[in-house]
Amino acid sequence: MSDVEAGSVRRSVSTAMVRENAFSRYVMGNVQPLTDWLQDKPFVLRFVVGCVRGYGQPIFLNNPISGTIIFAALLVQNQWMAINGMVGIVTSQVTALAMALSTNDIENGSICFQGLMTGLVITAKSAEESWYGYLVFPVMLYSSFSVLLTSALGNLLGQWTIPAFNLPFNIATFLFIAGTGPYNAHFAQASGVSPDMWEGHSLDWIEILKSIPRGIGQCYACDNVISGSLITFSMLVCSPIIFGHALLGSLLGIFTGMALAVPPSQIYAGEWGYNAMLSCSCIGGFFYVLTWRSHLLALFSAVFATAVCAGMVGMLTPLPVLAFPFCIASAMSLLMTSESKNLIRVPLSTITYPEEHRRKFKPSNVAVHDVIT
Amino acid sequence: MSDVEAGSVRRSVSTAMVRENAFSRYVMGNVQPLTDWLQDKPFVLRFVVGCVRGYGQPIFLNNPISGTIIFAALLVQNQWMAINGMVGIVTSQVTALAMALSTNDIENGSICFQGLMTGLVITAKSAEESWYGYLVFPVMLYSSFSVLLTSALGNLLGQWTIPAFNLPFNIATFLFIAGTGPYNAHFAQASGVSPDMWEGHSLDWIEILKSIPRGIGQCYACDNVISGSLITFSMLVCSPIIFGHALLGSLLGIFTGMALAVPPSQIYAGEWGYNAMLSCSCIGGFFYVLTWRSHLLALFSAVFATAVCAGMVGMLTPLPVLAFPFCIASAMSLLMTSESKNLIRVPLSTITYPEEHRRKFKPSNVAVHDVIT
Amino acid sequence: MSDVEAGSVRRSVSTAMVRENAFSRYVMGNVQPLTDWLQDKPFVLRFVVGCVRGYGQPIFLNNPISGTIIFAALLVQNQWMAINGMVGIVTSQVTALAMALSTNDIENGSICFQGLMTGLVITAKSAEESWYGYLVFPVMLYSSFSVLLTSALGNLLGQWTIPAFNLPFNIATFLFIAGTGPYNAHFAQASGVSPDMWEGHSLDWIEILKSIPRGIGQCYACDNVISGSLITFSMLVCSPIIFGHALLGSLLGIFTGMALAVPPSQIYAGEWGYNAMLSCSCIGGFFYVLTWRSHLLALFSAVFATAVCAGMVGMLTPLPVLAFPFCIASAMSLLMTSESKNLIRVPLSTITYPEEHRRKFKPSNVAVHDVIT
Repeated sequence: MSDVEAGSVRRSVSTAMVRENAFSRYVMGNVQPLTDWLQDKPFVLRFVVGCVRGYGQPIFLNNPISGTIIFAALLVQNQWMAINGMVGIVTSQVTALAMALSTNDIENGSICFQGLMTGLVITAKSAEESWYGYLVFPVMLYSSFSVLLTSALGNLLGQWTIPAFNLPFNIATFLFIAGTGPYNAHFAQASGVSPDMWEGHSLDWIEILKSIPRGIGQCYACDNVISGSLITFSMLVCSPIIFGHALLGSLLGIFTGMALAVPPSQIYAGEWGYNAMLSCSCIGGFFYVLTWRSHLLALFSAVFATAVCAGMVGMLTPLPVLAFPFCIASAMSLLMTSESKNLIRVPLSTITYPEEHRRKFKPSNVAVHDVIT
Repeated sequence: MSDVEAGSVRRSVSTAMVRENAFSRYVMGNVQPLTDWLQDKPFVLRFVVGCVRGYGQPIFLNNPISGTIIFAALLVQNQWMAINGMVGIVTSQVTALAMALSTNDIENGSICFQGLMTGLVITAKSAEESWYGYLVFPVMLYSSFSVLLTSALGNLLGQWTIPAFNLPFNIATFLFIAGTGPYNAHFAQASGVSPDMWEGHSLDWIEILKSIPRGIGQCYACDNVISGSLITFSMLVCSPIIFGHALLGSLLGIFTGMALAVPPSQIYAGEWGYNAMLSCSCIGGFFYVLTWRSHLLALFSAVFATAVCAGMVGMLTPLPVLAFPFCIASAMSLLMTSESKNLIRVPLSTITYPEEHRRKFKPSNVAVHDVIT
Repeated sequence: MSDVEAGSVRRSVSTAMVRENAFSRYVMGNVQPLTDWLQDKPFVLRFVVGCVRGYGQPIFLNNPISGTIIFAALLVQNQWMAINGMVGIVTSQVTALAMALSTNDIENGSICFQGLMTGLVITAKSAEESWYGYLVFPVMLYSSFSVLLTSALGNLLGQWTIPAFNLPFNIATFLFIAGTGPYNAHFAQASGVSPDMWEGHSLDWIEILKSIPRGIGQCYACDNVISGSLITFSMLVCSPIIFGHALLGSLLGIFTGMALAVPPSQIYAGEWGYNAMLSCSCIGGFFYVLTWRSHLLALFSAVFATAVCAGMVGMLTPLPVLAFPFCIASAMSLLMTSESKNLIRVPLSTITYPEEHRRKFKPSNVAVHDVIT
């Protein structure tokens, strides 16, 4: 091969890389070019993009394309729920502005997603039929509480450099559900108890297969397979690493739930998948750099989150456990101190998405002492 | 106007100011002259003044005159309860001495008020008729626990420079009530469940008006309107800012409770006022310097405290929620980090009373960087 | 007495001291010579000694002889339970290795004892008859959770320089018991409710005397008097100070329980002794240097732990309180800040056993400022 040919090959490879990089920069990850472009645009635009990004944040996706897909998935599931989610997201963005919280967090959607979740789950757990208009008031009120809690718990847990996860949403929503209950005159709650028992001999394996995307959809209170699949797809767009861990986590949650003989109807509905899936995704690449060790820890966290879920169900029923088990299991996994050099925390301020973390912080790329300070 | 006249006016104005200052120094606020005078007096006198100051501390009044008024209010409510409160206050002062806790805190009454509250609430929740003498023993024991908890939780929460509020009393009293229950052979508890449901159409608005002072009185387990009014008045003596926020807080608690359709009998009894009122008073001027922003945050905290209260009632019934909701809501409001310059924490060691905080720390008076260190 | 005689006496005294020292070095305390001897031996040997030391760690004994006695006590109680304890201890040692936790902690048995306890209590609370083989799986899984929790909670509580106590075991075991419950198809739990009420007039004082060693045995889920006595004896071997405080603590727990009118059958079973006993032992000489003040605090902690136990029983029944009350009461006692010079915390990294702490840190021996840094 002559020098000319070699040069041509080299050029075409590098063109392909540029194209791939362009795709990955404009579609995958955090879509940094959008952030750069918005730098000097009117604030209202950045506010709106913050809302759209907020749709992806509950599953660690800071990506407006994923956010849009998830918004579509919510419309597929239930329009009234989607509207209340939007009410929650806008209320919490406005509250965050009024409280003068960090502008950066407002533009990233990392505060308002708590309000989104609050709106979605309050609607999903309500005993009233859809379009019960008064529900908008608690959605707004408790969304604004979630903003206060986001700031407060961020400081509380910041002592150990662990994030607040979605604890603010969990606490706000739990307060509403526990505070009203099934017989409340204004805002009655649906009874959360499933009466069936474990019947191992008659498991429906097709339903169990469906419960993998359902478990992922349950992060947004969606039990519809199509919504769940759209949400799963939105992960693939932003970060294949999160996507892979989400599938594994959902599966591990199902199997651990089966080992603990939980009611099959709950497994089919995906209720045993979302905590495991969230823990698995956040440990495997998002808060830790993906290595074989953090991958194993992610799987372990998924099982642990399911065990925490089982324990909390036994303690809290008839109140829902929401995503508390995920918060607890993930916090424990982040608090662990290993002497291994293959378990590297991504500093909270530099978190973007797993693929980039791997590029920047992988042990073979950098000296460990540069990372952990 | 000649120079002489102007001088005379100036003199009479300044005399009025001196008089006003004298009044404010000898009656309002912390009554610093008393502290100065006690400096070289026998310790027993400082101990007694500490007890009297302790009567005001549950509602943030470090003022012996307010303390005396509150003592009278307790006698009006129930003499047996007042006596057990005194047993609690003396026991905890002695325990604090025995444990060699900070002398300053002993003389301020900022430890012993936990014992006062423990004594009052244990008596109020007891199923036994008045003058059941054995009750003195748990009052003494659990008051001494509250002293240990005061020191321990002060250190625990000191990591975030937030105070222990009245958590020590809450924990000690909750342990006793949960530990004995309605069928205990020695110390039976009154059943705390009110059976009535929300009936919005038939609210008694006179009772709701009465529930504003009752809500303030409930801080001391007083449901008597006269006692509640005396306690409210004791706030006006020490700090009009606390007084105003207490009224607003109690009112907001009532309305939020009504929005959540709680039983009217509980609203009438003031049970939905005291958590909101405590949160509102402590955020609006006591832990934050009073500005329009901290005023709004105080109102928000009052609503949040009521929502926390509703959630905890749903979770803990038949056990009482005591003042836990206040502690949680206020801690969250203190943990919040705003980028606003109008939200200024008073450093814990320099806390006196809202009017003085405003004089010393108001944004227009001082550079912010002097305050937040 | 001539110089020669005096010299001979001196020599024989010093020989006796050497002998006593030899006894105390090779049998009592941490048996440091064994640690020294193991320094350059194969790791598998250090691993096994770590397991044996782990048997003593739940009651603060880092001593292989005590560990062996306790192992015998477990065999006396129930062989199936003893085997599951061993499964737990080995699983957690292996998990700790796999997670690359501190080698020092692995060799001291201060991680694996959490797995031991998890195995013992899961077996003791199971509704299945002995030798239900499937139980080995949850024992292994939840033991490995306890290792993750040990590392995580150590960091969490390390902020206040307080240890994790046996919280990891408590949380792991509680999650399993709450997560399965009495009707679980795979792992049913024994119902924990004792139906009898307090009958003060008919107490069996012989049974109460037996409940002192039983209370000590209950730390290992042993209600057999012989097992309890062996475990008590194992304390005497390692540290007479722990032994004495354990007896006092168990007794105080019984009396406090009686004052709170708990069911006599629970007192007889030792269920009101172990929390008090653990708190008393750890405050009186283990975490604080033994002085008259820390001795009094230890007694106070024993009473407080029992009060916490009563409160938690009232709140959690039918779920078990395990040793949570001990953790809470002891944490509070360690968090306390006294201005007294007679209350000296042993720095966590230098903890060995009470007698040595007294030698090294007693106020009259060292300047306080050398100790508390």
